[in-house]
This record gives sequence, C-alpha cells and structure tokens, in this order.
Amino acid sequence: MIQSTKKRSQKAGLPPGALIHIGDRLEEKSKITVINYGEEDFSKAEVKTPDECAALKGKANVCWVNITGIHEGETIEKVGQIFNLHPLLLEDIMNTDQRPKMESYDSYLFVVLKTLFYDEKEKSAIMEQISIVLGTDYVLSFQERETNIFDPILEHLKNGKGRIRKMGADYLIYSLIDMIIDNYFIILEKLGERVDNLEVQLVTSPKTETLKTIQKLKKEMIFLRRSVWPLREVINSMERGESPLIQSSTYVYLRDIYDHTIQAIDTIETYRDMLSGMLDIYLSSVSYKLNEIMKVLTIVSTIFIPLTFVVGLYGMNFKFMPELKSPWGYPSVLLLMLVISLSMLYYFRRKKWF
Amino acid sequence: MIQSTKKRSQKAGLPPGALIHIGDRLEEKSKITVINYGEEDFSKAEVKTPDECAALKGKANVCWVNITGIHEGETIEKVGQIFNLHPLLLEDIMNTDQRPKMESYDSYLFVVLKTLFYDEKEKSAIMEQISIVLGTDYVLSFQERETNIFDPILEHLKNGKGRIRKMGADYLIYSLIDMIIDNYFIILEKLGERVDNLEVQLVTSPKTETLKTIQKLKKEMIFLRRSVWPLREVINSMERGESPLIQSSTYVYLRDIYDHTIQAIDTIETYRDMLSGMLDIYLSSVSYKLNEIMKVLTIVSTIFIPLTFVVGLYGMNFKFMPELKSPWGYPSVLLLMLVISLSMLYYFRRKKWF
Amino acid sequence: MIQSTKKRSQKAGLPPGALIHIGDRLEEKSKITVINYGEEDFSKAEVKTPDECAALKGKANVCWVNITGIHEGETIEKVGQIFNLHPLLLEDIMNTDQRPKMESYDSYLFVVLKTLFYDEKEKSAIMEQISIVLGTDYVLSFQERETNIFDPILEHLKNGKGRIRKMGADYLIYSLIDMIIDNYFIILEKLGERVDNLEVQLVTSPKTETLKTIQKLKKEMIFLRRSVWPLREVINSMERGESPLIQSSTYVYLRDIYDHTIQAIDTIETYRDMLSGMLDIYLSSVSYKLNEIMKVLTIVSTIFIPLTFVVGLYGMNFKFMPELKSPWGYPSVLLLMLVISLSMLYYFRRKKWF
Amino acid sequence: MIQSTKKRSQKAGLPPGALIHIGDRLEEKSKITVINYGEEDFSKAEVKTPDECAALKGKANVCWVNITGIHEGETIEKVGQIFNLHPLLLEDIMNTDQRPKMESYDSYLFVVLKTLFYDEKEKSAIMEQISIVLGTDYVLSFQERETNIFDPILEHLKNGKGRIRKMGADYLIYSLIDMIIDNYFIILEKLGERVDNLEVQLVTSPKTETLKTIQKLKKEMIFLRRSVWPLREVINSMERGESPLIQSSTYVYLRDIYDHTIQAIDTIETYRDMLSGMLDIYLSSVSYKLNEIMKVLTIVSTIFIPLTFVVGLYGMNFKFMPELKSPWGYPSVLLLMLVISLSMLYYFRRKKWF
Amino acid sequence: MIQSTKKRSQKAGLPPGALIHIGDRLEEKSKITVINYGEEDFSKAEVKTPDECAALKGKANVCWVNITGIHEGETIEKVGQIFNLHPLLLEDIMNTDQRPKMESYDSYLFVVLKTLFYDEKEKSAIMEQISIVLGTDYVLSFQERETNIFDPILEHLKNGKGRIRKMGADYLIYSLIDMIIDNYFIILEKLGERVDNLEVQLVTSPKTETLKTIQKLKKEMIFLRRSVWPLREVINSMERGESPLIQSSTYVYLRDIYDHTIQAIDTIETYRDMLSGMLDIYLSSVSYKLNEIMKVLTIVSTIFIPLTFVVGLYGMNFKFMPELKSPWGYPSVLLLMLVISLSMLYYFRRKKWF
Repeated sequence: MIQSTKKRSQKAGLPPGALIHIGDRLEEKSKITVINYGEEDFSKAEVKTPDECAALKGKANVCWVNITGIHEGETIEKVGQIFNLHPLLLEDIMNTDQRPKMESYDSYLFVVLKTLFYDEKEKSAIMEQISIVLGTDYVLSFQERETNIFDPILEHLKNGKGRIRKMGADYLIYSLIDMIIDNYFIILEKLGERVDNLEVQLVTSPKTETLKTIQKLKKEMIFLRRSVWPLREVINSMERGESPLIQSSTYVYLRDIYDHTIQAIDTIETYRDMLSGMLDIYLSSVSYKLNEIMKVLTIVSTIFIPLTFVVGLYGMNFKFMPELKSPWGYPSVLLLMLVISLSMLYYFRRKKWF
Repeated sequence: MIQSTKKRSQKAGLPPGALIHIGDRLEEKSKITVINYGEEDFSKAEVKTPDECAALKGKANVCWVNITGIHEGETIEKVGQIFNLHPLLLEDIMNTDQRPKMESYDSYLFVVLKTLFYDEKEKSAIMEQISIVLGTDYVLSFQERETNIFDPILEHLKNGKGRIRKMGADYLIYSLIDMIIDNYFIILEKLGERVDNLEVQLVTSPKTETLKTIQKLKKEMIFLRRSVWPLREVINSMERGESPLIQSSTYVYLRDIYDHTIQAIDTIETYRDMLSGMLDIYLSSVSYKLNEIMKVLTIVSTIFIPLTFVVGLYGMNFKFMPELKSPWGYPSVLLLMLVISLSMLYYFRRKKWF
Repeated sequence: MIQSTKKRSQKAGLPPGALIHIGDRLEEKSKITVINYGEEDFSKAEVKTPDECAALKGKANVCWVNITGIHEGETIEKVGQIFNLHPLLLEDIMNTDQRPKMESYDSYLFVVLKTLFYDEKEKSAIMEQISIVLGTDYVLSFQERETNIFDPILEHLKNGKGRIRKMGADYLIYSLIDMIIDNYFIILEKLGERVDNLEVQLVTSPKTETLKTIQKLKKEMIFLRRSVWPLREVINSMERGESPLIQSSTYVYLRDIYDHTIQAIDTIETYRDMLSGMLDIYLSSVSYKLNEIMKVLTIVSTIFIPLTFVVGLYGMNFKFMPELKSPWGYPSVLLLMLVISLSMLYYFRRKKWF
Repeated sequence: MIQSTKKRSQKAGLPPGALIHIGDRLEEKSKITVINYGEEDFSKAEVKTPDECAALKGKANVCWVNITGIHEGETIEKVGQIFNLHPLLLEDIMNTDQRPKMESYDSYLFVVLKTLFYDEKEKSAIMEQISIVLGTDYVLSFQERETNIFDPILEHLKNGKGRIRKMGADYLIYSLIDMIIDNYFIILEKLGERVDNLEVQLVTSPKTETLKTIQKLKKEMIFLRRSVWPLREVINSMERGESPLIQSSTYVYLRDIYDHTIQAIDTIETYRDMLSGMLDIYLSSVSYKLNEIMKVLTIVSTIFIPLTFVVGLYGMNFKFMPELKSPWGYPSVLLLMLVISLSMLYYFRRKKWF
Repeated sequence: MIQSTKKRSQKAGLPPGALIHIGDRLEEKSKITVINYGEEDFSKAEVKTPDECAALKGKANVCWVNITGIHEGETIEKVGQIFNLHPLLLEDIMNTDQRPKMESYDSYLFVVLKTLFYDEKEKSAIMEQISIVLGTDYVLSFQERETNIFDPILEHLKNGKGRIRKMGADYLIYSLIDMIIDNYFIILEKLGERVDNLEVQLVTSPKTETLKTIQKLKKEMIFLRRSVWPLREVINSMERGESPLIQSSTYVYLRDIYDHTIQAIDTIETYRDMLSGMLDIYLSSVSYKLNEIMKVLTIVSTIFIPLTFVVGLYGMNFKFMPELKSPWGYPSVLLLMLVISLSMLYYFRRKKWF
C-alpha cells in the first residue's frame, strides 16, 4: 500500500536545513555512479565517497552523478558541499515526504518527482522519490533505492544512439523525467486492467469483496493523483523558459512530456469517474437483491398465511360446526384454498413480481 | 466500446522520437492521396510511396496530402523527411493515444483531433485519431483507417462550389476541422435519442437493464467529454492569431467552429446532468417498489396472524373450555374475526397504505 | 418540454454559410415590420419582401427591422444582402440550436438570445431564439414566431414616452434585451411558485408523483441555466466598451441588465439547491415510511407468533398431556398469553417503537 | 421564512427607470431623518418632505440623510432630484429584490446591502435591503422599515466618541456597513446554537422533525450565503481605491470589514458542511433502526416458526400416528423444541445479532 | 472539541478599535518575555509591565517580545502605544475568532496564525491563535496561553546554533511560522493514525460508534482545513516580495514553509477523501447486514410456512377426510413435507442465498 503519511513529526523543533532522513529506514550503503559523456566520449565509474566524484567532475561535456540511497546524512552533505547546494535543498532530498516541485536557485534547478513501481504481490503501486539537480554541465539524481528505471538512458548514452550524446545537461534531465512519466503509464495500464476486471466481475457476480476492491482502487487513485497532478506545474514552469539552464531547443521536448502528464492526469480522472459509477452499480445491485429476497418472502407468505388461517378454522373444536359434518366440507375447503392461491398468484403476476 | 487505455507502455524505455505505432494493429497498406488545387485548377492522384507525393508537391496553390493508415513507420518517416517535420510530431501521429492538441512549430502548425463514428451494432461511439499538419501552402492529414468523413470537402473542391478553391491552406484545415465537429453532432443526436428513450423507459418500466444502460451512457459521456473538451482550447489557440500561417480572414470561421465546440460541450454536460437525475429516479423507484412489496406483506400478515391465533385458540384440546360447547361459540368467533379484520383494514386505510 | 437537441446533423457535410433552417418546421410566411423613428418622428410599416425594406431604410435616425419567421432561406439571404451581413451570421440566425452569444463584426454587432415563454397547458417553459444585429443606425431582430414580447417597446416608441426616441440604435438593442430578461423573471416566478407548492406537498403528502415533479423541475432548471448563464458573458462583453457602436452613455443601462442577469442566475441556482434538498427529504420520507410499515409488521408478528405457538402446543393430540385434563389448564394458558403479550408491548414501548 | 422570490414580474414591459416598489407592501409613511455633523457640531432633525431635507443639506461637514420606508415613489423621486441621482439607481432602491452590489457613478457611489434580523418567534432570519449612496459630503441610507440597527452610530455621533466626528462621509459609510456586518454575526451565532443543539439531539434522539430542521437550516444557509457572498466583492471593489470619494486612510477600515465578511462566509460554509454531515448521520441512523427492527422480527420469527410447525405436526388427526400414543411423546417433543430454540439462539448470538 | 463559533456578537455596536477580548476567559496574568539578540550577544528577561519592555527595546540587533495571555485590554493597549500599532490591529489580536491573515502596514507586517495542539484526553485538536508583528528590528508574538511551542527557537537563540543569530527579524518570524507549521504535522500524524485505525476497524467490526467517529474526524478536518488553507495565501503574500521588511535572502526559507503548507493541505484533502470513502463502506456494510438478516428470515419462513399449512390441513376436524384414515397417510405427508423443504433449499442454493 502507498503510505498515507511519513513520520515527518520527528523534525519538529529542529532548525531549518537539518539533514534528517524521513522515509523507510534502509541498511544498504549509498551507491554513487558518475557518468561523463560528450559527443565523442563516454565513461562510467562507481565511486565510494562523494570526494572521488569531485575528482571526476567537469572532465567531459556533461557529468551525471546518480546517487542511490539517501539515508546517509554525511554523503548527502558532502555532495552538497562539492556542488555548492543550498542546505534547504539537501533537507528536501532526504525528506521523502515531498510533493513534486521545481525550485529555481541561482545556478541550478531543483526538481523533486515521484516514481511508481507496481508491486505484483501486493497488487498495488509503490511510490519512491527522485530528486534531480540540474547545473550548467552536470545533473545529480538522488534515488531512495537501487532501481533499473534509468537503465535505458544509460544504454543510449553508452551506444551513442539517439541525439542524447550531442545534447547538453538539460536534455539529460528531460530524458530522466520522460523515463519517469513513461513509467506512470505502465502503472496506469495495470490499474486499468484491474478496473476493467472489476467491471466485468460487477456485472457477473458482485460480492462484498468487490466493494472493498473498488475502495482500494479509489484510494490508490487518490495517491496517484497526488503525485502526478503537481508534475504538470513542475514541467510547465520548466517550459516557461525563465531559466537560462534550459536551452530553447529543449522546449519542444518538455512540451511533449507536458502532454504526457496531461494524458496521465486525464486517465486517472477517467478511472476515478468509472470507479464512482461502479460504486453506484454495486450499491444498486445490493438493493436489487434485497428486493428479490423480499419478493420471494412476500409471495410465499401472502399465499400461505390465509390458507393456514382457513385450515386452522376447521381445526377448531366447537361442538356446533355444521360444515364439519357435511360430506362436501373437505372438498369445498380444498377448492376454496385453490381459488385463493390462484387469485393471489394472478395478482402478483399482474404486479410483475415474478 | 471506447477503449479506456491503449498499450502505451510498450514505448517505455525508447528514446524520444521513436516511431512506434500505438493503436489497433491493421493489416491494410497505407494509402496516400494527393490533391492539388487553386482557384482555376484541381487535380487528384493516388500515389504509392511518399516520394511520388514529393514530385506532385508545390505545383498548385494548395497541396493536400491525405494519408490513411498510420501503422507503417517508414511511410510516416518518409513523409516527415519530405515535409521536414519534427521527429516528436511524427511520434505523436503514430501514437493514437493522444489528447486533442495544437502545437505550433516554426514553419507549420500541428493539430491532433478525434473523430467519432457511431457503431450501430455495438450501439456505442468509436473514436479515431486524425492528425493534421498545416504548412504555408500544404495540408497533411493522417487518418487511422479509410473513412468517408472528408468526402464532402473533396466534392466541394472538385465542383469549385463555395469559396474553398479561392482560399488558402488555412481555409482547408478549417474545413477539415468543421467536418469533424459536424460529425460530433451526429453522434450526440444518436446518444440524445438513447437518453430520451431511456427516460421514457424509466417512467414506464424500470428494469435492472435500465441501470446498466444509464451507466454505459454515463461512461460514454466521460469519453466523449475527454475528446471534445480539449478541442475548445485547440481552436481557441488557433484563433488567438499568433500564427502567421492563419490569415485573419479565416478567424471568423474559426470562431464559428469554436461556437460549435462550446455547443457540443454544453450538450454533453446536459446529458450528464440528465443521466445523473435518471440514476436518482431509478434508485428511488427501486425503493418505492420495495415499499409496495412490504405494504402487501404487512397488510396480509397483520390481518391473518391474529386470526390464525384465534382459530388456534379454539383448536386447543383442553377438556374444560366452556365456549366450545356453546351453540353460539362458532358464530361469535366468526363475528369476532370479522371485526378484527375490518378494524385492521380501517387502520391501514387511514394510514393510506392502500 | 424544452427539447434537448435539435436536428443539427442535417447540416453535416454542407459548406459553411449554407442557409438551412434548424428548428421546428413552420408553415406561416415570414413577416417583416420596419419601424423608423427619431426624436420627432415615428413610422411603422409592414413590408412583403425585404426589398421594400431597403427602400424604407435610412430615412429616419434609427431604423428597426423586425423579422418574424426565420425558416425561409431566401428572405434571410435578401436581408443579408441589403444590410451586407456575413454568410456565417445568416447561418446562425437560421440555426435555432445556438447558445446565447455576442459576435463583433467590422460594422455591426451580432447578438443571439433565448426568450422563454410559459406554456400553461404543459406547465413548462418554451424556448425561442431571438437574433439581433446592431448597426450604426439600424437594428435587425429575428424571431422564430410572432410573439408580443416587443409590444411594450413599440408602444413607448409610438407614444414617445421615456427617453427611447431621443437615443440611438444602441439604446434600442438595450431595450430589446431588457425586455427579454424581464421575461425571464416571469418564468422564474412561475417555476418558483411550483417549487414552493412542491415543498408544501412534500411535507403534507409525498407521493411518487412528487419525485417526478422534482426531477422535471430540475431538468427545466438545467435548460434555463443553459440559456441564461452565457447571457452574462454576452452583456459583459457588450459593456466592456470595445465596440464603437455602443455609446458610453448606454453602459449604465447595460450594467443594469447585467445585474438582472446575475439575479436570474442566482435565483436558478437557489432553486437547484432547494430541489436537491427536496430530493433528500423525499428519499428520506420514503425510508421513514418503510420503517413505519416494518414496525407495525414486527409488533403484530412478534406478539402473535409466540401466542400462536402456545395455542398450537395445546392443540396437539398426544394421549398423555396432563395439562389438558386439568380444569385450570385453559385459564392459566390464557393468563400466560396475556403476560407474554403485555411484556412484549412493554419491550416495544421502551424501544420507542410506538 | 426568507422568501425565495419577490414579485419582480410586475415590472416587465415598463421602461427602465420606472419607480415601482417591489417588496412587502407597507402602510406606514416614509420617515426622513437628517443628521449634520462636523468635528465640533452635531444636529439631528426629522423632516416631513424631502424638500426640507434640501434646506438642511450642506450646512455642516457631513450630511447623513436616513430614509426609512421606500414604498413611496414620489419621496424617492424627490430625493433623487435633490441629490441628482440616476433614475436606474432610484429604481434599484425601490426594488428590494436586489443582490448586494456596488456601483460607481460620476459623483457618487451606490451600495446595496442586506441586513438580517432574527425573528425569535419564527426561529428564522428576516432579510431587509439597505441602499446607501455616498457623495463627497453626504450619505443617504434607505431602509425598508424602521429598525434600530444604526442607533449605536447615532449615539457615537452625538457623544463625539471615537474618531467618527473627525472623519468624512466615507468613514460614515464604512461605519454603516460595519454595523450591518456585525449584525450578521449575531444571526450566525443564533444559527450556530441551533446547529449545535441539533447535533446533540441527533445523537440522543433522532426524530423525523430533526430532518426537517436540518433541511430548514440548510435552506437558511443558502439564503444567508446568497446575501453575504456578494458582499465580499462589494467591499473589495470599494477598497481597490478607484473612487476618489473614499480616502486612502479609510482603506485600513474597509480591509477590516472585508476580513469580517470572509469570516462570515467561512462560518456559513462550515455550517453547511456540518449540516451535510448531520444529514448523513440521520439517514444512517434511520437505516440502523430499520436493521434493529428487522433483527427482532427475524429472531422471533425464525425461532417460533419451526416450533409452530412441530406443534401443528402433532395436531394432525391421522388415525395411525404412533408417537401420539407413546407416553414419552409429549415430553420428547417439548425437549425437541427446547433444543431447536436454543440452537437458534446460539446461531444468532454467534452472528452478533443480539 | 474545536469550537464552531466564538461570542463575537458582544462587539456589535461598539466603535471600531474597541479592545474587547473574544475567546475563552482566562484568570492568569499576562506574561511578557523580552529577548534581545545579535550575532554576538543574547539576553532574555521577563518583565511585569509593557513599560519595562520599552526600556529594553532597541538595545540589540533584534528584539523579540513574546506576550502570553491576551485577555487584558490595558496590556495590549500599552504594547500598542510603545510599538505604535494601529488600533484595528490591537483589536484583531484580542479577537481570537480570526482567520489566518497577513496585513501590511506602513512600518510593520501583521500576521495572524492558528496553532494546533492535540488533546490526548479528548482525542481531538485544540486551536489557539498566535498573532505576530514584524517590525524592522523587532518581532512581537501574542499567544492566548503559555505554551512551549517556541522553546526550540529560544534554545537555538541561546546556543547560537544554526544561522538564526546572524539573521534579522524577518528570519525570526520565519522560524516562528516554521515551528507552527511543523506542529501541524504532529497533529496530522495523530489524526492519520486514527484514520488508519478506523479503516482497520471498519473492515473487522463496523459498529454505530464507527460512524460517529468518522463524522467526528470529518468535522475536525473541516476545522483543520479552515485554519491551514488561508495560511497558504499568508505565506504566499509574504514571499511575493512586496514588503521591504523581508529581505530577499529569506525568500528561499519562506518558499520552503510554503511547500510545507501545501503538503499539509494535501494531507488534509487526502484524509477527507478517505473518510468519505469510509462512510460509503460503512453505509454499504449496513445494507449488507440487512440483506443477511432478510435472507435468514426468508429462508426459514418460506420453508416452514408451507409445511405449517400442510400440518394444519390434516388437523382439520372434517368428518369425511379419507386421508386421515389411511395407514399411509402420515408417512406420505411426512415424505411430502421433506420433498417441499428440500426443493426449497435447492432453489435458495441456486439463488446463492446461502
């Protein structure tokens, strides 16, 4: 399940800029990968401490430092010193309870995003935070955990396929965000399949489980929406062309991922509408079932209750009941009861109860 | 049924500009039709490969290239090379999971739209994507499949009827969009008829089917809305007069189709409101029916249950029951029961239960 | 009933500017009335063909041409030629499925409005379209049918009462719109009375009819809203002072009708809110009634079912049932049953069931 | 009850500026009070006709003319002539079916407001319209009826307490509006108490009355909202500083009443939300009660119905029923029935039905 | 519980600027703490009367005066005279029924905020008002009651930890607001835990209590929202950089708390959505339970009612009933009843009723 809140309260009372990790505790060590590339060359190295990363910095056209694991305060602080990052920015990197946002500092842009992974076992989406810093000739990316989400970009860089090696750091950040948004569609398709399955199930055999699944999917939509909706504004403010760090030739690419974001939001809203409709159908099918049950009860009761009265009547022990002695008594009572029940059935038929 | 999502995920990980067709797989070959016309002349030719199309280009005032079938990457790419189109634009053409949008490039405008066809068999709308590129003297239109939606325009061009032959490429793109929006009203009227039928049916004989039809229509409205709503912005941004490709004399026509779009949106919203009202009526008529059933059950039960008690009372086998021996016992019990049932009926009548 | 859609689809495929009448087919001939007036003079004439109208045009300060009946294409076209109107404008006049709007052309303003009449028989509002063209010294008004809505203005013009004869064509168009909006309040009051009646009825005796009336009124509110809401923008854009055709001295009058429009919208929204509240009350009163019925059933059943068991018990034919032979058997069973029923009644009383 | 609409329709067809009183008919004569004051002097006089008021005008720094009773057309017209007011403004004063608004004329500002009084008997709010005209050195206030709402201001003026005597006419209009808004909070507190009482009542003993009270309060909130909401814009447009009639030193006071208005709107919205929540609770408690009733019915029925069957079984008159002759027949049937009822009770207990 | 309204009405009729305390009456005396600090020095003193505070003012770089207890009119008035504050501002400080707001005066900024404390006993949030005045070199904070919310800031000031001692008064006001917003997250986490508990409880054992808890939490969300939502605008207007009192270097910090506010609003909205979903689940589980009960009733009744009729039939006392005399009568009736009940069970099984 996507968590509703993280333990942000532990920071209350600390001065701003305090580097406290907010998120799931992890034991693994942080891993730092430094990739340098230009139109002609490409190198990739894994370093132990951020200091080595400093040594590698600035050799090629673009330097991309990818840090996985953000729970170690000193590592983040070191990176901050090397790239001269604002303490509040470092604080935001370590606090995984962020809303997607873009902040423009003097010599770099800071972008916080959420990636989504689909947990097949739990059948729900897992959310992770990715923070990206864009400088003139470098890109820093911070991930909570090691994932393979950026592997295709690494592949393109190594092969020199596409235009990525010829472009600057702003094209790299675009590629990273593009990859993250492409990932959303994978999640949305999985959820879409579940919504479609649910719809089929609702028509064939609605159960109490169905309601719980509807509510669970609705809740996931709330969280998805919460992480995709602000993305729109993030990309929009990047595209507005106010930062000199983003070249105007990159705008057309940003506009493209802006369209994708709108598309994702649109899809989420459509699913939300569909789930609401399904809730209505479920509730109404419950009412319908109650009606069915009541109809059976009413038909059986209203037919037999008068008959039972009649047979009770002639079960009375009065001395003077002339009908009891007549040989036609029994057959005529049977006939009477037949007439009563047939007229009842006719009445129900006319009322379209069965 | 209008699909909720297309398999967009297959593109995740590919570099931007990769020409992957997203949509229903088709076997037919793409068809390219080249129409050249000016005030005096008109020619129409069907070409096999985009190269021939290049040969025909630029001979007359306006050149309209209509491509049906967008699943062949090479064809689209060739057309892109000839008309010098941006790779992202080509990608968008092949991806049929687009939101309607307008994008302004340096020397051409790019418009993505959705057309709707009514499938009589399925009784639902089918959506297809149409992409249009407007250059200074040419218009390219890309359709998913061969349709006859643009036939009337071809007719007007051939006959020289109306002002279309005298006007430029911007008037042609207006005519294409106008035709697409006119098509929306055909769909809306069909849906409107179904909404009206449903309303009649709801009053005369509400069934469980009715609810499902309401929900189905509601869902179609969601999808319709999703394809018409962004159109408003598309036309608005064309009309704002920022592109030199659209002459100011065409603005009055764009304003006209803008009005039509608003009209279509308005109609969709009205249907949505009506369908919501119908859902309320349906649910309330279900409750009403339950009440009716309960009333019958209650009247029958409450009248006969006491009577059955009375006849049971005199069915007891006690030795010493003086009433049983009295000759007036039986008639007075019958009288008593008549009084009980009549007073019950009076009580229910006063409560207005029947 | 206000219709939900008109047969707009018949226009699909025609070139823009095609004069096709969309609306109810009428047999009557169009009627053209030409009114010329200035501060000192006033003349009114009924003409057969638009050509005569041309002869009368321009003699006085202001020329008002009122055309009732818009289904004859040639008449509209002739008027269009005489006053030099744009083909799209003529198309809009003949298409009665328009949203209220204002369009500013080079030398005239075009306003489309909806008037409402109350059909006493059907107890619902009828909507008609009125198109008005404002030139420098003329006003053209196009009505679907002959109505007396503008009679008071004619009266004022004839008598020279008020300031209308001293003012220009812009004051005339203001007067026409004012008259149309005043008409809305008549409709709103009629609907308001029905809403109030419904509320009284809901409290005294809610029936299934009540629900249908609520839904019918709700639907009428949707249509009313649809025709009044855009009016706000229409008047607002006239008042913004961008057209030289409207003198600044007329702004104060436009602001006045703007206020009236807001007032009308406000009233509609209030009715909508009230109707929603009434739906809640209705549904809840249905639930309440079900509860009442269930209570009666439960009280009667739970009292008599145990008693019936008891009398059945002593109706058994076992040989060895000592109670049956005891002379106190019958009275003590009667006493037992009295105790059972009284304790049941006490229990229900404590539960506040009656 | 706050009325939903007033008889505005009687004005349809009249030329603009016609002075027709729309509102409750009153018999009393209008009363005109003229207050002149400056930093040093203060005088108050009651005049019979507006002409006398003209004589008193302009003697001191600020002249405040308070007119109670607006149903006499000639009085209003006279005042209009003396102070040179626009006919449309006079029309608005006499029409009590106005929305709160501010209009800026050349040499004066016109403000329409609603005051609320709490009718203890009806337990609901009564709404009255107050129109205020602000000139350079005079303020005209028009009330529907004589009230004591402005008494505190008169008191301050007489005593020279506070800064009011030193300030201009714009401070007087601020004081009047402040007094009106302060009055809203009295009403809101009364309604708030009723909302709180209702909440307590809902928990302890929900009745059908409760629902009607909820709906009545909801309706009052709709009307309150309608009169307070536009006030926000009124004060905002006064504060924007576009009128030379309002000195910049008064802005801080206007901002203060702007805050109060926001506070009032906020409170209304909160009450609306609370009432919606209470409706949910009410409806759910009705469902809950139905469940309780059904449980009792079901427990009693399902226990006794099988038992009644058993005793009926041995009430049959078959010749050959061996059980009837056995001396253990009766006790074992009694035992059987005990077992049946106990196991039923156990089943219901496990289902947590009681 | 958070109160819905405070007794604001007692102020109606008083001139603006009247210092009347609106809020809970407190007996304690006000406490004034004066803190002076610069980069090098720090002093903290508790003073008895505001006059002493004046003596201490202006000695160091920044002077922070913290006043706890705002119910004493003279104290507030004195402070107002010393720091030259506007009477309306003082009135706002004493009125605890304020909406969060920022007001910009000539030489100081005025900010009103709400802090939230969690009352463990009542399990609900308590709201208190904090007013802060920012001058060039001083900050005044007014609290309703003594709390330890600002203790961490005092600690940082004393230790000289962080940058706070080096920064100006604008950084101090930022720190105070930051502390207040951090506090919100503590409350939100407590509420979040309760929402999560409720969700678990809803699935395992829904009770009537559950509904009341949902409603109580919903109500708390309304009040939380009401105090956090306007905060957004407050910080936004501080950050917009219009006041010379806030240095541009502080903007980055304000942007940080702006993000936190958005985060808090987001969380509140998510909880509201979740609570609405839970209400749906609760209501539907109530319906489900009703269905279960009805099923048991219907199964038992419809099986035994026909059987009871059969046994009643052969309990009749007719002389001529051939079946009664047959030795196979009893066994065949028993068999008949077995067949009836088994076929009923089969029917219910097929209907999936058990």
